[in-house]
Amino acid sequence: MHISQRNKINIGIMGMGTVGTGVVKVLLENKETISRKVDAHIEIRKILDQNTTVVLDKIQAFDLPADVLTDQAKDLLDDPEIDIIVEVLGGIQPAKDYMIRALENGKSVVTANKDLIAAHGKELFDVAALHDVDLFFEASVAGGIPIIQSLKESLAGNHIKQIMGIVNGTTNFILTKMSEEGKTFDEVLAQAQALGYAEADPTADVGGFDAARKVAILASIAFNTRITDAAVFVEGITKISHLDITYAKELGYTIKLLGITKEIDGEVEVRVHPAMIPISHPLSSVKDAFNAVFVEGDAVGKTMFYGRGAGELPTASAVVGDIISASRNIQFSSRGRLGCTCFEHKRIRSIGEIKTKFYLRMVVKDRPGVLASIAAVLGNQNVSIATVIQKRIDEKGRAEIVLITHLVEERHFRDAIAVINGLSSVENIESIIRVEDAD
Amino acid sequence: MHISQRNKINIGIMGMGTVGTGVVKVLLENKETISRKVDAHIEIRKILDQNTTVVLDKIQAFDLPADVLTDQAKDLLDDPEIDIIVEVLGGIQPAKDYMIRALENGKSVVTANKDLIAAHGKELFDVAALHDVDLFFEASVAGGIPIIQSLKESLAGNHIKQIMGIVNGTTNFILTKMSEEGKTFDEVLAQAQALGYAEADPTADVGGFDAARKVAILASIAFNTRITDAAVFVEGITKISHLDITYAKELGYTIKLLGITKEIDGEVEVRVHPAMIPISHPLSSVKDAFNAVFVEGDAVGKTMFYGRGAGELPTASAVVGDIISASRNIQFSSRGRLGCTCFEHKRIRSIGEIKTKFYLRMVVKDRPGVLASIAAVLGNQNVSIATVIQKRIDEKGRAEIVLITHLVEERHFRDAIAVINGLSSVENIESIIRVEDAD
Repeated sequence: MHISQRNKINIGIMGMGTVGTGVVKVLLENKETISRKVDAHIEIRKILDQNTTVVLDKIQAFDLPADVLTDQAKDLLDDPEIDIIVEVLGGIQPAKDYMIRALENGKSVVTANKDLIAAHGKELFDVAALHDVDLFFEASVAGGIPIIQSLKESLAGNHIKQIMGIVNGTTNFILTKMSEEGKTFDEVLAQAQALGYAEADPTADVGGFDAARKVAILASIAFNTRITDAAVFVEGITKISHLDITYAKELGYTIKLLGITKEIDGEVEVRVHPAMIPISHPLSSVKDAFNAVFVEGDAVGKTMFYGRGAGELPTASAVVGDIISASRNIQFSSRGRLGCTCFEHKRIRSIGEIKTKFYLRMVVKDRPGVLASIAAVLGNQNVSIATVIQKRIDEKGRAEIVLITHLVEERHFRDAIAVINGLSSVENIESIIRVEDAD
Repeated sequence: MHISQRNKINIGIMGMGTVGTGVVKVLLENKETISRKVDAHIEIRKILDQNTTVVLDKIQAFDLPADVLTDQAKDLLDDPEIDIIVEVLGGIQPAKDYMIRALENGKSVVTANKDLIAAHGKELFDVAALHDVDLFFEASVAGGIPIIQSLKESLAGNHIKQIMGIVNGTTNFILTKMSEEGKTFDEVLAQAQALGYAEADPTADVGGFDAARKVAILASIAFNTRITDAAVFVEGITKISHLDITYAKELGYTIKLLGITKEIDGEVEVRVHPAMIPISHPLSSVKDAFNAVFVEGDAVGKTMFYGRGAGELPTASAVVGDIISASRNIQFSSRGRLGCTCFEHKRIRSIGEIKTKFYLRMVVKDRPGVLASIAAVLGNQNVSIATVIQKRIDEKGRAEIVLITHLVEERHFRDAIAVINGLSSVENIESIIRVEDAD
C-alpha cells in the first residue's frame, strides 16, 4: 500500500473576490469527501486580500479564524508550510510576480488567470518545471468544463485536428437573445449589463479579446506549440445585425462567436470571430451564457464539452479540481507529472492564408447585370458562389444581395471585395461573416 | 528537474479485435507525440490472440515483427519486462483471471471491459491497490468521451447531484431513426443490424443491459459507493411505439434510453429506461449513434460530455489516453495515484421508491365519466395530472387518453395503474414512460 506522507495540505488563496469566495465555499462544503479523495485534510491557511469589513465578514461567515486574512503577499508566498497557492487575483501584475515567487519557493500553483497563461505561459511553465512543481489552470478556459485536463490526458493519444469553442458567455448570451427576441446588439448589451452578464466596459467580451486568450491556451495544448493571445486573429460581434441573424436562419445557420484553431499541414490557424455554423452542429444549440468546446481528434472523432464558462461556483469547481490533482501529486511525490507539452514549434498562419467560406451581404442598384458583374469579380479571384439570394428592398431601385461562397483563401476573397467595393452598381457592403461548415 | 527513470515502456495487448487493432493503430500513428508526452517510447512487446492468418496479416500490416503475436496469456502476464497490460478481450472470463494475475505481477492494467468493472470492480480495485498499480477503464463508458477521468479529477470537488447518460449508441440510433423517419422499432432494428450498429442478438443493447453496466460504473464514481450492474433497474426500448414518439413531440419531449443515477438524501437511485426529456434539454439533440453524459454537480452546475461511444478509434482514444496516464505514473513513481474512491456505503433505492413523472397512454371506451374515474383513481394514490389529451380514435366508440402526471413515487403510481387496469371503461394500457423534466 502507498504510504501517505501528509495528513494535511495547506493552501493559500490570493484574492477573496467572486472566484476566491467560491473556492472557499466548495472546499468547506465538500470537505469530507475531498479529504477522503486526497487522503489528507486541505486547510485554508492564509487568504490574501484587503483587510476590509466586507472581506472579514465573508471570512467569519465561513467560520474561518480572522487571522487567516492578510494583506501581505509574503505571508503566503514565503510561508514554508503552504503547499499550494491558489491565484485568483486576475490581471497580469502583481499576479505574475506572485506566481513566480510561489513556484520558486517550491509551491504548486492553481490559477484561473487566462490573461497571464495566454500571454506569459512559457515563462511560468519553465519556472514550474525548474522547481518540480505543478502549475494548473483548468479554470482559465470555459470555467467548470474539464477541457484542459481532457486534452492533456484522456485525449492525449489523439492528433487534434481542430477545436471550435464558444468560450465567452457574454457574447453567447447576446447572440442568443438577438436571435430569439429579435433585438439589436445595443438593446441586448444593455440587458446583459443590467443582468451582470456584461461588464460596464464590455470591450474584452464583445471585442473577442477574452475568447482570444482562451483559444490561445487551448491551441497551445492541442498542438503542442506555444501560442500567445497576441498571435490570435480577433474580430468581435459588434457589427452583427439582426438582419444577418435572420438570413443565417433562412440559410440553415446559427451565428456564434467562435474561438477556432486548426492544424493544417503542420501549421496552425488560430482566430476568434463571429461565424455561421449549420443549425445541426452541436455548438448551434449552446444557448445563453453557456460555453462549449468542440474538439475533433483523429481517433476520438467529434466530441463536445458543455457547461457554464463563468461564475463563482463553476469556476471554483475547476479550481478545486486542480487543488485535488495538485494535492494528489504532493501525496505521491509526483509534482510536475503533467507539465507543459509545447515541445514543437509550428508556424501560425496569417488570417489571409486561412481557407473558409464567406457570407456576404450588400446593397446594390437593382438593375440588370449587377449580380453577373459581382460574380465575375469573385470568379477572377477563384471565389465560387454556393448560394445566392437577391431581393428588391425599396422603391428607390435598390436590392440586397446575400451570397455564400465555397471555400476560399481569405486574401483572395479580400482582393475580390476591394474590387466589388469599387463597382458603381454596389452601394454598400453591409456585412461579411465567415461560414464554418466544412466536414 | 525530474529524472525520468525509463526511456521505454513495454505494453502487452490482450485481444487483437476491433479495439485492440484501434489501439495499435493510434499508438503507431501518433508515436512521436505520445513519446514526447510520456518521455519514453511506448513499445508493443506482445499481443495475445489466436495465431491465425487474419491476425498475423494485421500485425504485419502494422510492420510489427511476427513474434509479438502469441496465443499464450502467460507470455504477457508473466513477462517481467511488460509494464502495462491492455485488456481488450471483453467478457468476464478469462479476462478477469488475466487481469488479476497482471495486477498481482505488478503491472498496471488498462481495460475497456465494462462487464468486468461493473460486476467485479471492487475485487479488481482491491488487488490493484494492494499491489500499488493502476487500473484504468476510461474506455468502459461512452467510448472516447473523457467522463471517468473528469469525474475522478476535474469534477472531484463537486458533490454530484445526478448523471443522465445516453450511453448506448445502438438504442440511440434506433430511437433517432424511429423519430425522424417514422419507422417501427422492428424496421429500424433490422436497418441497424444491416449497418453493423446492432448485433445479431440485440438483447444487451435494446434490453438496456449494456447501458446498465455503464451507469453502474458512473454511479460508483460519482457517489463514492460501489454499485454493481445487478443493482440497476433496467427496462429496454422494445415497447416504444412510433405513436408514443409522436405524442412526445406534440408534448415537447424527446424519448431517449437514459442511464440515470441520482443521490437524494444520502441514498442513490440508479436505473436504465426509456425516458421523455424536454426538447430543450441538451441530451435531446444527441442523435444517431452518438453518446452523451449529462452531469450535474453542486459547484459546476449542468455540464454535458458528447462524442462517439463506440467504434475502433473512439474506444482506442480512451485506451491510449489511459496508457499515457499509466505511463506517466510509471515515470513519476506514482502508480495508484488515482485509485478507487468507493469509500462510502450508500443505500440504493428500489424502483418503487423513486420519484418521477409518468406519461401514460391508454385506450378507453369513449363515454362520459371515463376520464373522471381515471383521475379519481390516480387522485386516491396522490397522483396528480399535469397534462391530458383525449382523442376519439375509431367509430367503435373508443378513445385514446394520454396524460402526464406530476412527480409521484413509482409504487403509488403502480398501485393506481393496477386499479385503472380493472376499470370496465379502460380497454388497454398501451404504454407507460417515465418523464424526466424536473429542474
